[in-house]
Amino acid sequence: MALIVQKYGGTSVGSPERIKNVARRVARWHRQGHQLVVVVSAMSGETNRLIALAKEIQASPDPRELDVVMATGEQVTIGLLAMALKEVGLSARSYTGAQVRIRTDNAYTKARILGIDEQAMRADLDNGTIVIVAGFQGVDQDGNLTTLGRGGSDTTGVALAAALKADECQIYTDVDGVYTTDPRIVPEARRLDTVTFEEMLEMASLGSKVLQIRSVEFAGKYKVKLRVLSSLGDPDELEGPGTLITFEEASPMEQPIISGIAFNRDEAKLTVLGVPDRPGIAYQILGPIAEANIDVDMIIQNVGHDGTTDFSFTVNRSDYARALAILEQVKQHVTARAIAGDNKICKVSAVGVGMRSHPGIASKTFRTLAEEGINIQMISTSEIKISVVVDEKYLELAVRVLHKAFDLDKASA
Amino acid sequence: MALIVQKYGGTSVGSPERIKNVARRVARWHRQGHQLVVVVSAMSGETNRLIALAKEIQASPDPRELDVVMATGEQVTIGLLAMALKEVGLSARSYTGAQVRIRTDNAYTKARILGIDEQAMRADLDNGTIVIVAGFQGVDQDGNLTTLGRGGSDTTGVALAAALKADECQIYTDVDGVYTTDPRIVPEARRLDTVTFEEMLEMASLGSKVLQIRSVEFAGKYKVKLRVLSSLGDPDELEGPGTLITFEEASPMEQPIISGIAFNRDEAKLTVLGVPDRPGIAYQILGPIAEANIDVDMIIQNVGHDGTTDFSFTVNRSDYARALAILEQVKQHVTARAIAGDNKICKVSAVGVGMRSHPGIASKTFRTLAEEGINIQMISTSEIKISVVVDEKYLELAVRVLHKAFDLDKASA
Repeated sequence: MALIVQKYGGTSVGSPERIKNVARRVARWHRQGHQLVVVVSAMSGETNRLIALAKEIQASPDPRELDVVMATGEQVTIGLLAMALKEVGLSARSYTGAQVRIRTDNAYTKARILGIDEQAMRADLDNGTIVIVAGFQGVDQDGNLTTLGRGGSDTTGVALAAALKADECQIYTDVDGVYTTDPRIVPEARRLDTVTFEEMLEMASLGSKVLQIRSVEFAGKYKVKLRVLSSLGDPDELEGPGTLITFEEASPMEQPIISGIAFNRDEAKLTVLGVPDRPGIAYQILGPIAEANIDVDMIIQNVGHDGTTDFSFTVNRSDYARALAILEQVKQHVTARAIAGDNKICKVSAVGVGMRSHPGIASKTFRTLAEEGINIQMISTSEIKISVVVDEKYLELAVRVLHKAFDLDKASA
Repeated sequence: MALIVQKYGGTSVGSPERIKNVARRVARWHRQGHQLVVVVSAMSGETNRLIALAKEIQASPDPRELDVVMATGEQVTIGLLAMALKEVGLSARSYTGAQVRIRTDNAYTKARILGIDEQAMRADLDNGTIVIVAGFQGVDQDGNLTTLGRGGSDTTGVALAAALKADECQIYTDVDGVYTTDPRIVPEARRLDTVTFEEMLEMASLGSKVLQIRSVEFAGKYKVKLRVLSSLGDPDELEGPGTLITFEEASPMEQPIISGIAFNRDEAKLTVLGVPDRPGIAYQILGPIAEANIDVDMIIQNVGHDGTTDFSFTVNRSDYARALAILEQVKQHVTARAIAGDNKICKVSAVGVGMRSHPGIASKTFRTLAEEGINIQMISTSEIKISVVVDEKYLELAVRVLHKAFDLDKASA
């Protein structure tokens, strides 16, 4: 008997029929003798519907009240799933984030979990009751409702697994695991049985949107065994093994050099040309960007010449116009020569912990792209990934040739 | 400066545009220097949508979980209204029932309010913040969410007014007050400036659905000044005076004999024929009906003859089939001769505290109906009302002739 936390996303609970399927899947695990805590998202489309309603009232909705409105999405799902489980004769009880309680700070719309009171859940589990918890939400110390930001239901699942010391946290999605790259682009893409925590972090942040990055960080911090599974199959049949996210450092020999090719097409780049090459310039440029709550992804500053340098960074494409406007203001202050930008770019990355012990991965990446005539606009590297920015029209081609170059279409030994 | 509790129903907050109108109306009262607590229902249609979702999962949804689902309706509205008030530059803060807290028993879907913690609201009001509270919902002592039953938002409004010792509780609806009868049936119907608490109770329970009966009882118990007003006019203009519900006993001279003609077309009658005329028979018949959670309205038992009697009662039309089935079971047990029923009936009532001091109202009622050839099937009277059950095809005619017979179309002196 194990204690398992399962998380089902919006698509998995997108209709009463699908909620009944989730209930059947949960019931099957329960029949096998496991204790179950089930975290659910809002039904697909519901959070967007609520945000749209709010925006009809306020173009930029008050964050505290937006959280009050958004938190209802998951609250509907927990009630419906509890009903579906009772309908098949099981004991189940729903909890909102505030009821659990999932204690957070008061950073509305992007709150951080501070702690979880697990006593009530523990008592339910001990008497055979299935615990249903609303994902994405919590409550601050003054009793205000908070939400954790998009994808926060994954974080709720992992946080509950950590608090309850669960044996496994299962994230059910519409894919049956983590792939070497997106199969819609490369049909030969393969499911990985395991992927390391660090690789998963790079994959998630690079746009393989299987798991919310924060939840992976959380899982790493609290050593939660995390598994990605598909909720699309017959709920009465055992699902495939999915992909297990591992935290142990395996020996380099066992690791593939590259685990996957990640990409993100929602990027835009901005460059401040000819700024003085002096200390503090990065802060002067990125400070105002951060103050406007714009997330910056890659940041590149090359060695200067003539006492000036060029400073580039990428942002989410939806923030491009705002970022450009801010730079136009900053320009005079930092005495830059000009501002340049391009919102028709994308980022492609090769990710793998094996990279650490294998030199030459970077040059192989660049050569592979060069042979296809793909111009590299920006390069950024870490211990376990190489990212390049290229024109968005080359996205699919770049992913395909890199996937093949690193033998990802071939089953590992 | 007064402390005013306002309640806006589902139609008044049925769209973002209407919520903005409510905000303008609230803002106008706030500008006049009043402290405001605003109670809101779910947006019109939302509660039914949520119940329909639940019924797709369970034909008879689990009450605890149904409350979890239904409570989201009002939660969305409070967030949106708080946003709308902030958008026009006012300080506002939303509270769910659990946040206030509105403490109830644990009778899910029809909980009773046990108490209200008003400290947080008081602090907000003292610093000029408008308090927005979700109607219809509360929390039991174990932290479970509860709802108060249909129309419970009125009860929330009155209960808050009582707890805060508010100067007035204003119930905004889509009519501008309480009328002598439904103007759709009698165009000459007039708005009443005042109506006594007892008359309002009879009107509400008889189907003039302006106010939820429980809220009127509550207002009577705690002497809350209750006013029915329209939310349909220009929100920036002073609304009409509506109808004030009074609790003081006025001298009979000031009272009109009859204040209004109420009716209810959702009735069905059932009769148990030829039951033994002995003690306990009413309980044997109505006990199983009550256990099935069927509300009984009129109950009539005439003097018996030959040792047997006939026992009749009315129920909501939607409960007719279930009640009939129960009686067929009861029939043998109480050795009744037969069961009869009719779900094509309606109830029409003349209501007025002046009736107490004016004999002859009953006979005038019966004569008026007889002159139109309307057969009376059942009669029930109280201190301040006379109700008759007639064939539903006579509903409009009966209401019209009684309205005219009691001079309700003529303005009072």
